[in-house]
Amino acid sequence: MEGCGEDGQVKLLGMAYSPFVMRVRIALALKGIHYEFIEDDIENKSELLLQSNPVHKKIPVLIHNGKPVCESMIILQYIEEAWGNKAPNLMPKDPYDRAIARFWAAFIDDKFAASIRGVFTGVGEEQQKAVEESVASLLVLEEELSGKAYFGGDEIGLVDIALGGLLVAVQAIARITDSVLIDTLKMPLLSTWAHKFCKAEGVKEVSPDPAKLFEFMSEMRAKLTSPPAGN
Amino acid sequence: MEGCGEDGQVKLLGMAYSPFVMRVRIALALKGIHYEFIEDDIENKSELLLQSNPVHKKIPVLIHNGKPVCESMIILQYIEEAWGNKAPNLMPKDPYDRAIARFWAAFIDDKFAASIRGVFTGVGEEQQKAVEESVASLLVLEEELSGKAYFGGDEIGLVDIALGGLLVAVQAIARITDSVLIDTLKMPLLSTWAHKFCKAEGVKEVSPDPAKLFEFMSEMRAKLTSPPAGN
Repeated sequence: MEGCGEDGQVKLLGMAYSPFVMRVRIALALKGIHYEFIEDDIENKSELLLQSNPVHKKIPVLIHNGKPVCESMIILQYIEEAWGNKAPNLMPKDPYDRAIARFWAAFIDDKFAASIRGVFTGVGEEQQKAVEESVASLLVLEEELSGKAYFGGDEIGLVDIALGGLLVAVQAIARITDSVLIDTLKMPLLSTWAHKFCKAEGVKEVSPDPAKLFEFMSEMRAKLTSPPAGN
Repeated sequence: MEGCGEDGQVKLLGMAYSPFVMRVRIALALKGIHYEFIEDDIENKSELLLQSNPVHKKIPVLIHNGKPVCESMIILQYIEEAWGNKAPNLMPKDPYDRAIARFWAAFIDDKFAASIRGVFTGVGEEQQKAVEESVASLLVLEEELSGKAYFGGDEIGLVDIALGGLLVAVQAIARITDSVLIDTLKMPLLSTWAHKFCKAEGVKEVSPDPAKLFEFMSEMRAKLTSPPAGN
């Protein structure tokens, strides 16, 4: 993909396996924005990353005509506003519907992503608690999906991308930790949604290979939960 | 204050001493939006609050023509978008500048407010660590203020309200815990900003009385840090 043209010069600092980077790649793909993907090394962060996000030093960072935007949900809103003339709209036009979209996006980050992290990094009772919290959040989202194809209505929108970007990682975490997270019986709407989302145009092209992500995350979890070396 | 008229019917569920409610009251005051303030009791939450914010069950909730909007930073953006024709603008028009405003607002919530909570509820080493984190965040904000009267430029904007809403509480927490947070010598810009912000039209009218807030928060901290009763 080219990083220049009518969209301006667009670069994305990221990592193919990061679910937060995935969110940004989905939004860029849906809007058909060409960009240069610059893979960063979290163990050895690049000078460009440190300069572009000196406060958090985290990916993803979108660099548009030399100016960096950080934090995945802020980047999504930036993409929507900077390329507002490009279909599809990632957010509704009505102020109330926009507030509702922001509410669910924040819920996914503050509640669901936080507890999923606990499932991934935790062990024993602590992990069990994180599984219960994750399931509770998913059940709230199941209810919110009622009567709709996507959280955004008929089309993929901000909330779909917020949750959908995490999907492949959530599925890997469920397998690695032998947990039931998106339960087909208890969450029929969310299960259908997940299936449809993963196959959607703009999503499937940028999704990491589930087998490779599983392997990568299994190694990561093994490192995180192994007892410290030495004496 | 009336809750109806050309602005529609506007109600705010809140508590006079909540810094997050304060953010919303400042934004409503700056835009000159009339509203009915409904004081809620956090110890005994109203049916209206539970119905309006069933997910988090927290104040503030803005109810506009019967429709609830939750979470202070989402409410601020809603106010800006729903009453976009009312001066002053709380957010810049340029998409990049908007992303930057959202970045700092998120920094204030995710980093600063989280560590300030630790100062208020913590004791000993844990509290000391929270003080150090709070000061580190404030120093980052001091740098961001460089060359500007307000975070928003010449006028109060989203970031000013995000931080400014917390100010009276931060000052009370500093006194209660005998901590130095906004250090005049190390943070001259932030100190000047804080002074100016508190005296600004639209802010001073809705600020809680510092002495009463101090008393209220002192009692709260005493409850939080006292050893559990009974055996």
